[in-house]
Amino acid sequence: MTERNIHVAPESGLAVEEQNVEIVERKGIGHPDSICDGVAESVSRALAQTYIDRFGKVLHYNTDETQLVAGTAAPAYGGGEVLEPIYLLVVGRATKTYDGERIPAETIALRAAREYLGENFPHLDLGTDIVVDVEFGEGSGDLQTVFGEEEVVPNANDTSYGVGHAPFSETEQIVANTERSLTGEYAADNPVVGQDVKVMGKREGDHIDVTVAVAMVDEYVGDLDEYKQAVEDVRHYVADLATEYTDRDVSVHVNTADDYEEESIYLTVTGTSAEQGDDGSVGRGNRANGLITPNRPMSMEATSGKNPVNHIGKIYNLLSTEIAQSVVAEVDGIRQIQIRLLSQIGSPIDQPHVADAMVVTDEGVAVGDIEAEVRAAMDAELADVTAVTRKVIEGELSTF
Amino acid sequence: MTERNIHVAPESGLAVEEQNVEIVERKGIGHPDSICDGVAESVSRALAQTYIDRFGKVLHYNTDETQLVAGTAAPAYGGGEVLEPIYLLVVGRATKTYDGERIPAETIALRAAREYLGENFPHLDLGTDIVVDVEFGEGSGDLQTVFGEEEVVPNANDTSYGVGHAPFSETEQIVANTERSLTGEYAADNPVVGQDVKVMGKREGDHIDVTVAVAMVDEYVGDLDEYKQAVEDVRHYVADLATEYTDRDVSVHVNTADDYEEESIYLTVTGTSAEQGDDGSVGRGNRANGLITPNRPMSMEATSGKNPVNHIGKIYNLLSTEIAQSVVAEVDGIRQIQIRLLSQIGSPIDQPHVADAMVVTDEGVAVGDIEAEVRAAMDAELADVTAVTRKVIEGELSTF
Amino acid sequence: MTERNIHVAPESGLAVEEQNVEIVERKGIGHPDSICDGVAESVSRALAQTYIDRFGKVLHYNTDETQLVAGTAAPAYGGGEVLEPIYLLVVGRATKTYDGERIPAETIALRAAREYLGENFPHLDLGTDIVVDVEFGEGSGDLQTVFGEEEVVPNANDTSYGVGHAPFSETEQIVANTERSLTGEYAADNPVVGQDVKVMGKREGDHIDVTVAVAMVDEYVGDLDEYKQAVEDVRHYVADLATEYTDRDVSVHVNTADDYEEESIYLTVTGTSAEQGDDGSVGRGNRANGLITPNRPMSMEATSGKNPVNHIGKIYNLLSTEIAQSVVAEVDGIRQIQIRLLSQIGSPIDQPHVADAMVVTDEGVAVGDIEAEVRAAMDAELADVTAVTRKVIEGELSTF
Amino acid sequence: MTERNIHVAPESGLAVEEQNVEIVERKGIGHPDSICDGVAESVSRALAQTYIDRFGKVLHYNTDETQLVAGTAAPAYGGGEVLEPIYLLVVGRATKTYDGERIPAETIALRAAREYLGENFPHLDLGTDIVVDVEFGEGSGDLQTVFGEEEVVPNANDTSYGVGHAPFSETEQIVANTERSLTGEYAADNPVVGQDVKVMGKREGDHIDVTVAVAMVDEYVGDLDEYKQAVEDVRHYVADLATEYTDRDVSVHVNTADDYEEESIYLTVTGTSAEQGDDGSVGRGNRANGLITPNRPMSMEATSGKNPVNHIGKIYNLLSTEIAQSVVAEVDGIRQIQIRLLSQIGSPIDQPHVADAMVVTDEGVAVGDIEAEVRAAMDAELADVTAVTRKVIEGELSTF
Repeated sequence: MTERNIHVAPESGLAVEEQNVEIVERKGIGHPDSICDGVAESVSRALAQTYIDRFGKVLHYNTDETQLVAGTAAPAYGGGEVLEPIYLLVVGRATKTYDGERIPAETIALRAAREYLGENFPHLDLGTDIVVDVEFGEGSGDLQTVFGEEEVVPNANDTSYGVGHAPFSETEQIVANTERSLTGEYAADNPVVGQDVKVMGKREGDHIDVTVAVAMVDEYVGDLDEYKQAVEDVRHYVADLATEYTDRDVSVHVNTADDYEEESIYLTVTGTSAEQGDDGSVGRGNRANGLITPNRPMSMEATSGKNPVNHIGKIYNLLSTEIAQSVVAEVDGIRQIQIRLLSQIGSPIDQPHVADAMVVTDEGVAVGDIEAEVRAAMDAELADVTAVTRKVIEGELSTF
Repeated sequence: MTERNIHVAPESGLAVEEQNVEIVERKGIGHPDSICDGVAESVSRALAQTYIDRFGKVLHYNTDETQLVAGTAAPAYGGGEVLEPIYLLVVGRATKTYDGERIPAETIALRAAREYLGENFPHLDLGTDIVVDVEFGEGSGDLQTVFGEEEVVPNANDTSYGVGHAPFSETEQIVANTERSLTGEYAADNPVVGQDVKVMGKREGDHIDVTVAVAMVDEYVGDLDEYKQAVEDVRHYVADLATEYTDRDVSVHVNTADDYEEESIYLTVTGTSAEQGDDGSVGRGNRANGLITPNRPMSMEATSGKNPVNHIGKIYNLLSTEIAQSVVAEVDGIRQIQIRLLSQIGSPIDQPHVADAMVVTDEGVAVGDIEAEVRAAMDAELADVTAVTRKVIEGELSTF
Repeated sequence: MTERNIHVAPESGLAVEEQNVEIVERKGIGHPDSICDGVAESVSRALAQTYIDRFGKVLHYNTDETQLVAGTAAPAYGGGEVLEPIYLLVVGRATKTYDGERIPAETIALRAAREYLGENFPHLDLGTDIVVDVEFGEGSGDLQTVFGEEEVVPNANDTSYGVGHAPFSETEQIVANTERSLTGEYAADNPVVGQDVKVMGKREGDHIDVTVAVAMVDEYVGDLDEYKQAVEDVRHYVADLATEYTDRDVSVHVNTADDYEEESIYLTVTGTSAEQGDDGSVGRGNRANGLITPNRPMSMEATSGKNPVNHIGKIYNLLSTEIAQSVVAEVDGIRQIQIRLLSQIGSPIDQPHVADAMVVTDEGVAVGDIEAEVRAAMDAELADVTAVTRKVIEGELSTF
Repeated sequence: MTERNIHVAPESGLAVEEQNVEIVERKGIGHPDSICDGVAESVSRALAQTYIDRFGKVLHYNTDETQLVAGTAAPAYGGGEVLEPIYLLVVGRATKTYDGERIPAETIALRAAREYLGENFPHLDLGTDIVVDVEFGEGSGDLQTVFGEEEVVPNANDTSYGVGHAPFSETEQIVANTERSLTGEYAADNPVVGQDVKVMGKREGDHIDVTVAVAMVDEYVGDLDEYKQAVEDVRHYVADLATEYTDRDVSVHVNTADDYEEESIYLTVTGTSAEQGDDGSVGRGNRANGLITPNRPMSMEATSGKNPVNHIGKIYNLLSTEIAQSVVAEVDGIRQIQIRLLSQIGSPIDQPHVADAMVVTDEGVAVGDIEAEVRAAMDAELADVTAVTRKVIEGELSTF
């Protein structure tokens, strides 16, 4: 029997899948906000790893404030050029001296940021298209945290909460996978598709509209006809993809803001709108589960870039989703589960002030039938809270 | 009878006031994220007003990306000093040339930002404690928008949505008013209270915990005893205040992270944690209604700094709340109403793709009884959508 | 008898006053390079004073790298406006912690810079026309220097040299005083004259051309005729002034790059070309004696902003001029004296590696006649080397 | 017979080679000021070349204001690390739109700067050790200049002057070649020698002291003994080298500020002091001929980064040296020649206001004997003034 303050209760309303209108959004990895998220999180991982390598534990840092100032570009059929580089300012705090030893936090951050960009943005020339700058203050010494081989469970240093749910609704699955497939395997085969892909899913009753905005890469577009073809190809691909996740009726719309008459189309040099006019920053886009879901409770917490050892908001948002998924995988009869974790300042983070689950069961199943199982699954996940920290550092958990 | 696509339906779940656990948060005007929100929005207003004064209409701009890089400070009883200034970078796009005339967008922004800081932060010395920088790109010419005497309703240029609700729950009222009163009348009388006040309300059943973190101003704190007294005074004030909004049992906690033994307390020179270690950016804190409410649908949209003429996300978030409040004021029998607006690219913004209301009625009232009234009230607000734009420009609507 | 390595010798060539062609230049206090010099030096003085006040001695710092990035402006008859602010980045090193106490070097710098600008640039609105930023690294701890009540003579830490001469030639006097009077008493009475005044004097035989470029302040210029009048007024004033310093024939040219046909004139909003297109940095303009004198030996050393206790280049450049002036004041029969000081690493700075004087005597006087006097005067000045440091800190010695 | 205003006269004083004390300095390519010079000039060349390629002529730009803010490093035997990157801000003006076409001035600058650093600084990791930023304003449109196939001679747009001399004195040759050989062939064979080499030559009568400061690269220094050996090796190399240029007595001093007792030595990670505490900017170091020569007239003009088509200060400084060298090469009997060019606003730059030569002849030669030849040689060089522009653009003329 657990001492953790776990509550399991029936959800008072309908499962999202049953609600009449559902809205889901995902900003792709090349959206200016997501670029900031990705850089911030890769900088965070690099710092954590460095601290572990040098001191056997993670020291204090937070790198969750990357700001992107858009550049200027002149895309053109066959390949245009960036006129003014994107400016990316990686802001944060990091421990720069420990035990008499100095840690090159800023150069580590710079390398991590540039490597992340290099690996994920094939159309972005790191030498000319972007300036990466870094400005780290020194964290307070007394906030230095310990996370090493012993995996001590740290205490919560703030009142914060996390929310997560499982399973994804059909619309959520379509939105998440549309972006991942487009910027993943599809872009690998079709370099005309840039990394800045924004997907919005709207379901009204049994009709799902998937609206996709894709930054096309000008080098691979010879003229307007080729552009139209690229748009058409994406539409077919997404329409096919959607059928894997739903039997509902799906309409796909691609680059709806285009005006072919005016030849005003979504063409880019680098595959991201950051090249022209669209600024970005950390924590303004996708939530920790990769989606924006106004039908569900969400946390405002910027997860990317936060220290995964002691930032309670980051840990609880990731953990809530982990718990929800794990419960759904282990316990039968759950149509939808919503997990919420609230921290208690000064208590170990595996002892939340409250951990509650709101469950919609399958027909014929009562919450009481499965409550013990749910509670046990939640308890096990909470007991293993430091696994979240480890997975984040090793890059196994995405934060946006 | 209206042609607008308005839906009114019963909420499938419980009103938030009846749910078992409720969490509400508000970051005060001196929180680093809110500083960015406030600066971004005052810059936006100044630009809009300038465009109107010079051209009779609002031109294209967006100033929603202010980034704050924290300074370093050495607070001390009786008054310490800022060691390294806060750095505030106002980022955005603005039309700099129109009709052959040049517009000083950056100097206007600089003035507006500094004036906003001067008016709201009495303990911040603008000459030494903060560097305000500005970097505006040029907006695309074809996005120039028209908003002037004629008040033409613009078309939506993006697929976006807004959400709002009314009335505020008891916990929401307490959280909102605690911050506003503390940084308002209380701080006016008690300058020891800085502008960086963070309030978290948690209700479990009928018990409400209000946790307040207040940045105390060192100039007005002679020693630890005076600090303790200041904390105690705030606690009493907040406890009294709460009774105006609820009959429930309320506990108030102030500066719980303090450690008096170690004399580790929340003392600042300037009244904001931006002076030491806490960075900030626009849109990461309060939603358009001034609160963070994980029990309710929220939009991720950063509202502050956006152009109030044509930024559909900004308009719809503010309008949803306006509609909800207006409906509750005009229609009897509503316990809770949730409004959601979804835009339709290319259509006038007073014609949303869908406008839906989810209503919890008072006992004895059926949604059907009041549906027509609700619909009419919504319709009237939508018809008057440009009022939102006007109120934003005139500073009558807060965005955070 | 002195142990200092002092050489006195006849100059092998003609005194500059007798050479056929002489060129002299001075950039006024409002020239972008001079703005940087002035800010850097006032920051330096503020830091030195703070260290003395707090620790009784001057600690390590160097603030000689201020960079000005020009703004954009739209001047207009009757008053135009700055479109994009000037950006001024104060760069340097300073001791931020000493004896366990933290020193607010950056905020001191910011205040000093803004105060200097406020006092010297009446047409520059500090709230909108300029962004002052500061970025100080930490100086190496082992370079901490001692300069306090005891006035210990520090050792030279570099091989460097200084040069100075006296008296000023007629052309030099005209150039120096033209700028000082124009930006001083004349501008006080005639606010149409801005602070950015550049004066070039060229003497060929007995004819002196004085070319003056004056940034006129648009607020005080109603139309082209008023502008022409302002130019004419300056020309008369300068022509009159010149007669105080020479009997030679003087021609004065003002704003020669103007083209009245095209109405292309030198009009500014703020009184400095920094508002539009002209960047600046420390040490690129006037030498320590306030002039640029290609007929004479010059040091490349940027004097402004350097630490006056131990920066040997700064001290020796100022001291050379002080020595030259003092010798001319005390010893009769000198037509021109040129002083050169070369440091010796590791030796006290009052013991230069070599101090040499090249003298042109008046007719009838041999160098041998006055050598002992010159040597004694030089020796006395060298013995009192720390007086230079004191005068710099107290603002009695100008560095540009 | 020429119409140019050329004067040839005997120098009134001694040739520098005969003066009693001579001081000569050169900052190596890795000195922070020289890094700025080198970057500014390579950016200038890249822009000029781009304008020629696209429009057949050079448009308006000036990129002479690069600022370097030093980093922080922790050098260590065997290889240390950079802790905080160097920050290099390339500032300037450039034409960004011409004839309806946009020019990517900033991305060109960024590429040129990074390529220059990559080619010249083998120990500097461009991904982590330095942040290169760029901020270009727009040049005034009416300053657009024409330089293309026709090679029209432009008019002077400012009153400016240039100075140059030939031949180099022995001390000058030693200083110039010591730096070039050390950072060139010697560093190629001995990577322990970094690019930041500063050479000061001081001649008193017939004794020359050569003081060299060499930034040693820590990766190639295993311990203090290896460091001492590296210092010793440099000393021998320089001593040998000096004998090629003089029969005078030469003493060589290397890294004299070292303190072996305290193990305080000149060790760097990257081969430049820019990594730790030494800031830099354009135009503060070497003059256009590569040296700082306080025994001779010098111009304060920052040459690097200036537009080589119409910046009269740049052209005249380079041309003066070219003329002096050419005259010495063509005319026998010259011991020293000093050239000075003064521009005339509004006149073609091949028609200077005055071009004068001050000559010291070999024994037995009168200036009158060679005056016609000197004049003819000067005239020919002036007639070919646009060759300087071409050579600068093609990188054949060094500017520092």
